[in-house]
Amino acid sequence: MTLPKVGITLGDPGGIGPEIVVKAFSGRYPLPRARYILFGSGQIIKREEKALGFSLPLRAWRSGLESAQASLSLREVPAPFQGLVRGAPAQGNGKASFRFFEAAIAEARRGNLQAVVTAPISKKSWELAGIRWKGHTDYLNHYYPDAIMAFWSRKLKVALFSHHLSLKEALKRVRRRNLLRFFLILHQSLEKIRPGGLELVVSGLNPHAGEDGLLGREELDEIIPAIKGAQKLGLQISGPFPPDVVFRSTLGQEDKIVVALYHDQGLIPFKLQALGVGVNVSLGLPFVRTSPDHGTAFDIAGKKTASPRSFVEAIKLAVALTATS
Amino acid sequence: MTLPKVGITLGDPGGIGPEIVVKAFSGRYPLPRARYILFGSGQIIKREEKALGFSLPLRAWRSGLESAQASLSLREVPAPFQGLVRGAPAQGNGKASFRFFEAAIAEARRGNLQAVVTAPISKKSWELAGIRWKGHTDYLNHYYPDAIMAFWSRKLKVALFSHHLSLKEALKRVRRRNLLRFFLILHQSLEKIRPGGLELVVSGLNPHAGEDGLLGREELDEIIPAIKGAQKLGLQISGPFPPDVVFRSTLGQEDKIVVALYHDQGLIPFKLQALGVGVNVSLGLPFVRTSPDHGTAFDIAGKKTASPRSFVEAIKLAVALTATS
Repeated sequence: MTLPKVGITLGDPGGIGPEIVVKAFSGRYPLPRARYILFGSGQIIKREEKALGFSLPLRAWRSGLESAQASLSLREVPAPFQGLVRGAPAQGNGKASFRFFEAAIAEARRGNLQAVVTAPISKKSWELAGIRWKGHTDYLNHYYPDAIMAFWSRKLKVALFSHHLSLKEALKRVRRRNLLRFFLILHQSLEKIRPGGLELVVSGLNPHAGEDGLLGREELDEIIPAIKGAQKLGLQISGPFPPDVVFRSTLGQEDKIVVALYHDQGLIPFKLQALGVGVNVSLGLPFVRTSPDHGTAFDIAGKKTASPRSFVEAIKLAVALTATS
Repeated sequence: MTLPKVGITLGDPGGIGPEIVVKAFSGRYPLPRARYILFGSGQIIKREEKALGFSLPLRAWRSGLESAQASLSLREVPAPFQGLVRGAPAQGNGKASFRFFEAAIAEARRGNLQAVVTAPISKKSWELAGIRWKGHTDYLNHYYPDAIMAFWSRKLKVALFSHHLSLKEALKRVRRRNLLRFFLILHQSLEKIRPGGLELVVSGLNPHAGEDGLLGREELDEIIPAIKGAQKLGLQISGPFPPDVVFRSTLGQEDKIVVALYHDQGLIPFKLQALGVGVNVSLGLPFVRTSPDHGTAFDIAGKKTASPRSFVEAIKLAVALTATS
């Protein structure tokens, strides 16, 4: 079995991305054997190595001259080095982090990478740089409209039915047909990465899952019919359950994933439960993509205190999922 | 200092309410010194005592003949004893549990009780009994339109800006004036029970608190102006913070309370964090009212396995809050 090729992006140069990438590959964290390729800037990596007081065993990446051995190489991505700002969103940060990401995804789309692990970017930096995407997932959704944002830890797995929408817009998406389609795509993508897939446990939308229509009708009119439709098609799926109970009651059940109907419904419990060890996974892509569950953390950038734990977990999960896919 | 008088209601006779009340006063849990008065039915209490194998040191309550000593008495509330069903909502259960509650609140409204601790009722039983209120809080809101539902534990305190509304209706309530009014009432009621009050930490409504309007405008148009208005009036208040971060970052900070903008935003994290030890508190009433953070648990009614922990915490908190008020 050849070792998987895993792209790693540096993220926003003004945030903690470069620091956690360098820390993750410092040798202090056991990582699975793979051919890792950093997409970024040697200059930024050197800055971090100097600050942290050690060097990575990096070699320059050359197309067609790749080793079959476990390795760590640098794919230098030309990026502007004016206008980089430490500790804040900036146009230069946005341009650089977008190019790192774009280059890695381009390789993955060509089939040259089995997985991509992305360090955090700043949506604000991207906006300042005139980039039209609202983030990694928004970009991926353009090429893969069925991409699903999911969150993974040992205690809890969550898939988001919608993510970067206002709550008002997210509510409007809760329609029978959208839900059924989502359940099917989620089920299929889970089957690819795990034999037999996972049971989908669907949260309600309203308090107490609507309490038989007393507190909202979406459960009766949209969600229950969609779940029944999915059951008829043979999916392992249950719900809708009261939102304030379903996450707690699914904790520790490794063969289940909770379907959250809007961003914070899923992320409030996930971030409470899996703090620092949670991984963001994009499902429904032809390659694996993971990222840590935190952001750029501009407030602690350059202070050498950032923990690479979640990033290390993201790398481990990416390699594990390529092994089964 | 005279000991506070604390009313205790039995809750739905078909649920775990009577069991946890009897267990709480069994002597196995240290309770603060107070004059406790059970509002309920001696017959139901005897049933529980028999099942659990011990008796409470109960004496009959007589108006005007109250002891100044720590005591536990029974205020017999006439209720229909036909149509009581164990383990399910029923008309008789609804009538009985409503009368217990109504009698206790009537005493509290007359100033004869400093606190009321309520065991769980079933909204469905109340509905079957033709009672127009959707629960304890709905009833209290009628007499005290400014009553606020809050949740209390050592690790996390949460106040709900709205509670038993569909998510769609809850969204519509997020208006500057409603918010400012809520902040003021919450602040005033907290000052009464805790010298100096608590800092209000306000959650956003949209993902990432709207991300400067990219993901929803309520933060810019409604929430931030309301917070600024409250600050001008001298309140300790901050926000809006990203909903998926604010609960985690407030954990363990005893002088803060998170303002959640809808039911599940507050209850998903609270129930994950304070499982079994959380207490529901009604603020903004002229008396203290607390209840456990769980429901009737019909599925385990009569099995003698119900834990009185949250109910015991509710009693302790009720007495603690009367002491400072």
